[in-house]
Amino acid sequence: MSDTNSIETVSFVGSGNVATHLALALFKAGIGIKSVFSPNKLNADEFAEKFKCQVVSDITETAKSIDMLILAIPDSRVAEVCNSIPDNGTLVVHTSGINAMEALKSKSRYGVFYPLQTFSKERELDMKTVPFCLEANNNNDLQRMYELAKKISSNVHFVNSKKRKLLHLTAVMVSNFSNHLYHLSYDILESGGVSFDFLKPLIQETASKVEEIHPHKAQTGPARRNDITTLEEHMKMLSQFPEYQQVYKLLSEQIRKKFHE
Amino acid sequence: MSDTNSIETVSFVGSGNVATHLALALFKAGIGIKSVFSPNKLNADEFAEKFKCQVVSDITETAKSIDMLILAIPDSRVAEVCNSIPDNGTLVVHTSGINAMEALKSKSRYGVFYPLQTFSKERELDMKTVPFCLEANNNNDLQRMYELAKKISSNVHFVNSKKRKLLHLTAVMVSNFSNHLYHLSYDILESGGVSFDFLKPLIQETASKVEEIHPHKAQTGPARRNDITTLEEHMKMLSQFPEYQQVYKLLSEQIRKKFHE
Repeated sequence: MSDTNSIETVSFVGSGNVATHLALALFKAGIGIKSVFSPNKLNADEFAEKFKCQVVSDITETAKSIDMLILAIPDSRVAEVCNSIPDNGTLVVHTSGINAMEALKSKSRYGVFYPLQTFSKERELDMKTVPFCLEANNNNDLQRMYELAKKISSNVHFVNSKKRKLLHLTAVMVSNFSNHLYHLSYDILESGGVSFDFLKPLIQETASKVEEIHPHKAQTGPARRNDITTLEEHMKMLSQFPEYQQVYKLLSEQIRKKFHE
Repeated sequence: MSDTNSIETVSFVGSGNVATHLALALFKAGIGIKSVFSPNKLNADEFAEKFKCQVVSDITETAKSIDMLILAIPDSRVAEVCNSIPDNGTLVVHTSGINAMEALKSKSRYGVFYPLQTFSKERELDMKTVPFCLEANNNNDLQRMYELAKKISSNVHFVNSKKRKLLHLTAVMVSNFSNHLYHLSYDILESGGVSFDFLKPLIQETASKVEEIHPHKAQTGPARRNDITTLEEHMKMLSQFPEYQQVYKLLSEQIRKKFHE
């Protein structure tokens, strides 16, 4: 393929949440998905059926006759898996937030195609607003990747590895940790026979507020007000959940300090 | 007023976020707001102008010639403020999540009118979906309060003090603590010159996921995957923010334990 051609065909290494959501968006945009390699045979077969592609059993075959190979695999395995694929001049990208682009430097053309979002198989989502953070080791590929990403999202950016790593770290905080707080709350409410549904409008509003207001201004609650009586009462209520008490204590103390010290 | 009359006029003690948002919704629904008492003169004047009501400087006057007196004041002051108002047979309610209804037992008619939401002056919100948790010391008042709440929200419930306290505790966790995580992330991104805007679609999706999926199934990220390399890398990146490191460590360990022990 010449450097100025657009990316029309891709293959995947990996068939998990990121691979599946990304493949779905590319498939819908008319991009050809040629093959998938995955250690999880069940996932791979499902993936292949969904996107009318081939399952390949030899990873060294994956980079053949396509415009871009997408490694959508666990962060910790990116460099090792990349090294196991022979360089045939095909553009290879990873979708990881934490890995430097240089994890792929065993290839001649490489880059990062990172969708900043939380993906679960149980839930479809609209890729149009997902921020894509792109990086490449040459400008031709970067432009081709930009044009590809623009076909599935209107929120595409060039972001270097250092900034992408900060985004990945904070993504864990706002998403995985917030979801953990939802999880704890679910457990606590369940123990008292109260429906989690009560919290849904509050969860939504909390997320929507910071679309417009700086989180400092958006903060409310007993720690924000330095209401020690309520903080102590809540700690007492959590006595049967010592781990959740630790979370309550640490976060309340930090909020209190931010506003009252 | 007879017990079967509907609630047509109210007064407020307090002129903060909850009072203002509640008064606005009641005002729009055609409920007469007669007066406001508040130690914060500036807030009280603004409140009075907005809702065409009177500022009273003597709290003992507040319960006169109205159908319901609303105490929208800090949780820790509810009982004390209530005790300072003479009982003239008027229904008195508080809007607190944590206070037992019995904090108002110095009155002959009392109840709780608790909107489960996070309110900031900087942001208008649609009260229609806000869960109202109601309680009263007699069924006539409970019915009248229900009819009043239904005028401003379609999400009205009878909830006893014990369950309401659990909702308040978990509201702090899913809202104040999540907002704190947004705050930390804002700081971290700012230190690296990255815009918080990148995280907004992720924050929205994380909140929307648990509308449909149990938080256990919705969990993603390095701790969920037991990806120790990424967890360690993130901890290293946070070395200049030792307090944020504590949050990262505690929450990641809890997520890891929930899924891998």
